Amino acid sequence: MRSGADPSTVRIEVRVELKPGIMDAEAASIERALGLLGLASVPRVATARIYDLEFSAVTSEEAGRLADQAVERLLANPVIHRVTVRPVPA
Amino acid sequence: MRSGADPSTVRIEVRVELKPGIMDAEAASIERALGLLGLASVPRVATARIYDLEFSAVTSEEAGRLADQAVERLLANPVIHRVTVRPVPA
Repeated sequence: MRSGADPSTVRIEVRVELKPGIMDAEAASIERALGLLGLASVPRVATARIYDLEFSAVTSEEAGRLADQAVERLLANPVIHRVTVRPVPA
Repeated sequence: MRSGADPSTVRIEVRVELKPGIMDAEAASIERALGLLGLASVPRVATARIYDLEFSAVTSEEAGRLADQAVERLLANPVIHRVTVRPVPA
């Protein structure tokens, strides 16, 4: 998050997770490490990646459309990823 | 997110971002790639990592304490990271 963002900008948050059944190797490593560290109760872990996109001088509709394009063309792989795109309130 | 989670579990979401002023190399690469792909308006990008921790058979207070321990001991580097820990409503 950026503080003091220009009010004329539109922020969209893209959350990319692995689909159920896809191996989350980082999460598995974290679970093992927390056990080795002696944490009193080791949680089940899942990871996700957030891309916070801040558009300038576009409408919120246009920003949503551009974010969808960015997801399709660069940020996610539909075979393995589940994606959530949501506007971030100013 | 997992659907159909056991109601006796407690979920805590840990969000790890880079502090302002710390180089976000992945975000810079994404901005450049979106420009090269010809996106009509290239956003400023920031990235964050989400760790979704699901504890079993602990109270929500205990889960919060354990999540804080996991952050301190494994998930974040206080020199470069800003961390937000929040409970996820069931």
